[in-house]
Formats: sequence, C-alpha cells, structure tokens
Amino acid sequence: MRHRHPAQHYISGILTGDRLVLSQAITLVESRRADDQAIAQQVLEAVLAKTGNSIRIGITGVPGVGKSTFIEAFGTYLTSLGHHLAVLTVDPTSQRSGGSLLGDKTRMETLSMNPNAYIRPSPAGDSLGGVAHRTRETILLCEAAGFDTILVETVGVGQSETVVHGMVDFFLLLMLAGAGDELQGMKRGIMELADALVITKADGDNRAAANRARVEYQNALHLFPPTGTGWFPPVLTCSAMPSQGTEPHGIMEVWQLIDEYQQQMTQNGARNRRRQDQQLTWFISLLRQRLEERFYGQPGIRDTLTRLENQVFTGTLLPLQAVDMLLGELSGKH
Amino acid sequence: MRHRHPAQHYISGILTGDRLVLSQAITLVESRRADDQAIAQQVLEAVLAKTGNSIRIGITGVPGVGKSTFIEAFGTYLTSLGHHLAVLTVDPTSQRSGGSLLGDKTRMETLSMNPNAYIRPSPAGDSLGGVAHRTRETILLCEAAGFDTILVETVGVGQSETVVHGMVDFFLLLMLAGAGDELQGMKRGIMELADALVITKADGDNRAAANRARVEYQNALHLFPPTGTGWFPPVLTCSAMPSQGTEPHGIMEVWQLIDEYQQQMTQNGARNRRRQDQQLTWFISLLRQRLEERFYGQPGIRDTLTRLENQVFTGTLLPLQAVDMLLGELSGKH
Repeated sequence: MRHRHPAQHYISGILTGDRLVLSQAITLVESRRADDQAIAQQVLEAVLAKTGNSIRIGITGVPGVGKSTFIEAFGTYLTSLGHHLAVLTVDPTSQRSGGSLLGDKTRMETLSMNPNAYIRPSPAGDSLGGVAHRTRETILLCEAAGFDTILVETVGVGQSETVVHGMVDFFLLLMLAGAGDELQGMKRGIMELADALVITKADGDNRAAANRARVEYQNALHLFPPTGTGWFPPVLTCSAMPSQGTEPHGIMEVWQLIDEYQQQMTQNGARNRRRQDQQLTWFISLLRQRLEERFYGQPGIRDTLTRLENQVFTGTLLPLQAVDMLLGELSGKH
Repeated sequence: MRHRHPAQHYISGILTGDRLVLSQAITLVESRRADDQAIAQQVLEAVLAKTGNSIRIGITGVPGVGKSTFIEAFGTYLTSLGHHLAVLTVDPTSQRSGGSLLGDKTRMETLSMNPNAYIRPSPAGDSLGGVAHRTRETILLCEAAGFDTILVETVGVGQSETVVHGMVDFFLLLMLAGAGDELQGMKRGIMELADALVITKADGDNRAAANRARVEYQNALHLFPPTGTGWFPPVLTCSAMPSQGTEPHGIMEVWQLIDEYQQQMTQNGARNRRRQDQQLTWFISLLRQRLEERFYGQPGIRDTLTRLENQVFTGTLLPLQAVDMLLGELSGKH
C-alpha cells in the first residue's frame, strides 16, 4: 500500500465499519514513516471518542498448546451470539508479502471467512517480544470500527505476555495437561498474571489428565497472593477440536466466565481502574521509549555502548562508572 | 558524619576489615552529595577486584512473617560455622537519628552483638520501594571488607522484591502457613521468582498446619515453569524462636539447601550467568535512571506532566499525543 489518502478517508471509513479502510489505517499506524505517523495520529485522535466500548481479551500459551484452534472455536461461538470480533495476532513465522500477511488466514480458516470476524495478523518483525509495536492503537481502531470483542493473541514466550497483560481487560492463559516439557520457555511469573487458565485438548485419552491438571492448578492458584479485585482466577478445561466421534466442549464456559468477570469488574470499578492504570503506564513507557530513542540515536553511541557493556558484563567495570563514561564521552563530543 | 576523609582512608580501612570505616564508606555511597559520590566512586573502583567472593542471599516476606527472628537464628548459625555475615536491612519504621539508625539493633539483639556479624540498616526514606538505593554498592563494600555471606532483607511488599531478586544469587521467600490474610499486599508474580520457600513459625499448634502448607506449596511450585537452571525450588518449614519447651529447628536445613544450590549453580555456570545478567541489567537501569533524571529535572516539566497525565488517565488524550505535546513544549522553551 504505497498510496496514502487524507486522514478524513480513514476516519469516515473506520466509523462506517469499512474493513478495507480499517486494514489500511492499521497499516498506517504500524508504519515507521513520519508522514504516515502524522496521518495515523490524526485518525486516532478523531476516532478516540468512539473507542473503549469493547472487552479486550489477551490469549497466550506456548506453541503447541492450540491457540489457533481455540480462537477458531471461541471466535465462531462469539459471532454466533451476535458479537463482532477482531482478532489481533502476531505470527512469528509469517512474512510480509507485498503489504499483506499470509499464514493466519490458513491458521484460522473458518473464522477468516466469517463476516462478523476480522483477523489482523502483524508480522513478528515489527514486534517487540512477539507483540506488534502498535497493538494498543490497533485495538482503538478496531473498537471505533464497531468491534465489541477484541482478542489479542501472543506467542507465549518471552516478554510479550507482560506487554499484552498491560493492554487487556482479561488475560487468559492456555495450558496443556501435565506440567513438564510444555512449560519450557514460558516466562516465570506469568501464571500469576492470568485471570483464568484453560487446559486445552481435554478430549479422548487426554481428558482424565486434563481434569487432574485442572484440580492441581486450581489448588495452586489458591496459594497465590490475591488479585486485589475480588476475582479468584479459575481453571477450566476445553476441547476445541476433538478427535472424531466427540463434540467440542468448554468453549461456552470460557465465554460465560469472561462475561461474568466483565460484569463484576465493571460494577466494582476494577475495570476502569485497570484501564486507567494501563493508560498511564502506556504514556510513561512511550515517553521512556522516545527518550531512549533520542539517546541511542546519537552518532557513535552504539560502539561505545558495546565496549562498556562488555566490561560491565565481565565485572571489570562498575555500572555507575560505565554510565559516567558514556555520558561523559557524549557530552565531550557535542 | 560531616567530616570526610580522602578515598585512601576508606580503601585501606575496608580492605583490613575495619567496620567503623566500612560504615562510613556505606554512608558515603548512600549520600546524594556530588562530592561524597566522587569519593565513593574512587573507593568502589579501588576495591572492585576484591568483591564478588560471597554468596548473596535475598530474604523477603510480608510484615509479621518473622523475618527478623529468622535472620537472628539463621545468622547466628552461620557465624557458628565460621562465616562472616553482613545483613543489609531496610526498616520502613526506622528514622535517621544523627546519621545512625536505631531500630534494627533491637530487632536483632543477639546478632548485633555478634563479632562475626555486621548489621547495616538503611532508612526507608532513601529507598525505592523498600530497597536502599545503593544496596548493590553496599554489597560490594561488604565483600571487600571480608564478609563471605550477605543477607539482603526486604519488607516484602511492593516493587522491592523484584529489585532485590536482581542483585542476589539466591532468593528466599518466607511464608506463613495457611493462604489467606498474610498474602495480602504480596506482589503477584513474586512466588515464581523464589529459589526456595520457607514456612516460618512451624511450632506448637501451628506445626501441623505448616507441614500441610509445605506440601501444598511444593505441589504448586511443581506446576510453575522451570527455572532454566535445573533447580527446583523446594519448600521447607522452620521454627526460629519456638515457644517454651521446644527447640528451634529447620535453620540448618535452610543453609544446607542454599549451600547445595550454590555448589550446583557454580558447577553448571548458572551462578556466573545470573551475576553477569544482573550486572548488565544494573547498567541499563542506571543509564535509564540518569536519562530520566536529566529529563524530569528540566524546569517546568512537572506541571506540564501532571496536566497531561490527568488527560491520559481519563482517556481524553492519547498517550502518543501527550508525549508529542510534552516534548514539543520542552523543545519550544529551550
């Protein structure tokens, strides 16, 4: 998409729910070009009043846990209830191909054909730890376009979960039965951030193990410090795509749970508090990011930094000395 | 302590293990005066080669869990083995009184009289989330003065645990039996950072409950993502100061565990990796801190920031706009 329209084109397109225009606007928002960013900001400002009216759900889990299958079944169920669903995914294997992304269309075949679902993959190359760098803005655009339910999917390794946790109302962690190999690569601390756990693939031979896992995790979660909102993260099981001869189950229950959560948190004010905290955190982290971009963008700094980091790493230079040397060299140069 | 000596006074005093000089040097390191900092940096640089030869242990737990009592018993046991122990504590209730701190001397009466133990309280006023802002440097000074075991105690609420986790080899979480009120105020995610849990006050009527809690927590920890070092955080019970007629127990076992950990992690290289990562993180966070101090130190910025934050908080201003406005106003002024 090399051709750019004036901001008004995107604004009115988004507000009438035009998906093509929405997609173009998201591409603008994701662009690193200054002229694109200028238009993107105008668009975001203009639609701001129409945002916020959705439930934002983060979904994470390690590769192999069945995120795509779960989202297919969960999303299809949500649209059957009349919801308008936007799915923002980061596919680490996807490649940008002439401005559009492949991969996710085939990952979620049914949902991608569904008129009430909108799937927006973002290339992992644009992402920080598996989260597209403009996911927060993309959520706002989708809300302005009339989507009332936003799913943000992350790959479930590294820093991405914490980032996504900071932009959603509800954070869902998908797990497999049996603690072991599948926990490898999962960040420690993430379980305590989850608003609910769902044990996937609870069917066939795996069903008994999934039920045992459910009880074990539920007991474990009771030992965690409280959330401070009166919510006790529950553990469910589900089967989104069982083997032949059995029915999917557990999908409806996940939605009922999230719905109940949403009602409770809206009533007790915790939803608003969480969103306000997220806004402030977003602001502070953007400001920090901008200050660091300015700093690290100075000529020659990378080489000096690498040299000092090596000395700090091996313990031959104190961090405070290294900082003084770095700032000293820079102020000497300019 | 208004009188300052030249750096060499502190350097030779520390290297000969003079506690009075060590205390003066820590005060220098903690000082925010530029001239003090200049001497402190010289001292740190000069003793750097003599640092690192200790095991650094972080101890945390909510108020009431019995941290002081545990440290008294644990520290006394360590000195009976011939160890030289430094205890760095942050007492949120302590007040600076003419340059020295009261409170901790009475909190750990036996240990404070022990010639092989050195207790250094830091006032909470100087601290970030309950950790003295120069605890990392204080660890180095204590190591250079010949202490082979460093305990860093935190209050167990807020951000302090994460900070302390980033400066120790072993992170010990003290807990009470029975999940409930005592978990209030504990930061979520902290349990997954612990290298071991110890259930305190496992005596008298509480002993059975403590043993049940031990099993429950042990089961829960098995469900956590692995540490990546081959270490599986165990759960122990202890009684540091039982009621009359029974003996303290469990203290020796905690030390055996830490000793075993230290040997394993030294052999498999995880100890060095953890320390190197900590050095780099310390450097990056100091650099960030310095950049932010410069930025937030600009005249007039606080008012503008507060105004923008309020708008961001209520959702009437996009964070990215707020950042642009803030940086725009500043560059316009200067």
